[in-house]
Amino acid sequence: MFNATFMPRFYETDAFGHINNTVVSGWFETAREPVFRIFTPELDIKALSLILARVEVDFVAQIHYGREVSVRTWIERIGTSSFVVCHEASQDGHVVARGKAVQVYFDFALQKSGPLPAKERAVLEGLVQSAQETRT
Amino acid sequence: MFNATFMPRFYETDAFGHINNTVVSGWFETAREPVFRIFTPELDIKALSLILARVEVDFVAQIHYGREVSVRTWIERIGTSSFVVCHEASQDGHVVARGKAVQVYFDFALQKSGPLPAKERAVLEGLVQSAQETRT
Amino acid sequence: MFNATFMPRFYETDAFGHINNTVVSGWFETAREPVFRIFTPELDIKALSLILARVEVDFVAQIHYGREVSVRTWIERIGTSSFVVCHEASQDGHVVARGKAVQVYFDFALQKSGPLPAKERAVLEGLVQSAQETRT
Amino acid sequence: MFNATFMPRFYETDAFGHINNTVVSGWFETAREPVFRIFTPELDIKALSLILARVEVDFVAQIHYGREVSVRTWIERIGTSSFVVCHEASQDGHVVARGKAVQVYFDFALQKSGPLPAKERAVLEGLVQSAQETRT
Repeated sequence: MFNATFMPRFYETDAFGHINNTVVSGWFETAREPVFRIFTPELDIKALSLILARVEVDFVAQIHYGREVSVRTWIERIGTSSFVVCHEASQDGHVVARGKAVQVYFDFALQKSGPLPAKERAVLEGLVQSAQETRT
Repeated sequence: MFNATFMPRFYETDAFGHINNTVVSGWFETAREPVFRIFTPELDIKALSLILARVEVDFVAQIHYGREVSVRTWIERIGTSSFVVCHEASQDGHVVARGKAVQVYFDFALQKSGPLPAKERAVLEGLVQSAQETRT
Repeated sequence: MFNATFMPRFYETDAFGHINNTVVSGWFETAREPVFRIFTPELDIKALSLILARVEVDFVAQIHYGREVSVRTWIERIGTSSFVVCHEASQDGHVVARGKAVQVYFDFALQKSGPLPAKERAVLEGLVQSAQETRT
Repeated sequence: MFNATFMPRFYETDAFGHINNTVVSGWFETAREPVFRIFTPELDIKALSLILARVEVDFVAQIHYGREVSVRTWIERIGTSSFVVCHEASQDGHVVARGKAVQVYFDFALQKSGPLPAKERAVLEGLVQSAQETRT
């Protein structure tokens, strides 16, 4: 599992006085960075053969400015050419948002998706956890 | 059904050369503005009794800088205290993203959700369409 | 002079209840798009030989959600390899922000700045106005 | 002097392959957070009596994805009701951007600016440095 911490930024708030919902998708993208590094350790964008096919976010509670948010990230399942990343964001010890992202292995030169290479797949498999396990 | 148009902004691109995925959630929030106006015609934030419980976005195709994106928005179904808004974004005549948002009627004073008022519910009901209907 | 219109988006508000200051830089970048088109009519990013060297923004009044903002853009002066773009944003008939951007002609292949080509310079010269003239 | 560190986020890149210029204003706003805490230690937005009157940013070099950016923040000078905050951002040991922000003491209840209170002024005075001193 990967852990990331985000200190909410003032420009991430909205007129409701809390963190705007659209910000959470950005934090989750950032929390997937260790997953990107499996495909390109130096975060070389030209070598990052992943596209995002789908995201889901459940907003569980208001996220407040001025207090750290921690995000846990793991892999839920792996298909032939895609895999599902899960995120859980907490603030003050309570879950505030949950999310999923479907990432697809994509050959930018051929402009088509393809099977996950064996080496990267093996690393991803080591990160697979059920939601139950992550709560332990 | 509501229609909105977005001209992609340069700062909305990312290093892949296309519009970043996190931007689409923001466009969809903006495309829901006519829905917000059902609850507060003047977009008075203090009178906007809605919270966002969940979003889903399917990224169907790359979104390019320099060409307009049109977003169609309709209501899929209405529950007791919540309703589901659907979005479909197109560029150059092709669907590039689809999304759903679950909005919940929320009393900020009581800090709890409650049943949708009859007046607003009636307006929402007039906007209910199946995905099939929207393709006609 | 170029004119652009921005309808503030909800996610552009902040916890003060108005549009966040950082958003204005993004609107001004977008308002410079007709200037970018002088260098690449199709907004082909690979052909856009401009970099941003400096921005200034004066925040004159609070910018409100729910009401359109119009931005006027013109050229203040042109140097050998750079030029100064001016912006003035208004809402409800009052100026809310003023800004300047120094754009430099830059050869990405050589990774260095160079003199503005004669053709683009001529178009820019037609857009030069003093701040006084713009108030007429 | 205050120090802050920013790991560039993927959605902060643009199609030029580097960090978009508009992002730097947001980082600098975030880097001013310790200054905000002088006025409200708990970052209580309702108690934050400061508005932003002006920003300037000089973009010195391209900012790359995948490598940390450090931002140094200090006070340049203090007026009756306003003060100037300076920022310098570095990546890989080189300055990539410099900025200034003019913050004004503002009474939101009266909707007008006013003299900086003595207590906050004293703390700000302890943070005044010349640009030269900051290079030592």
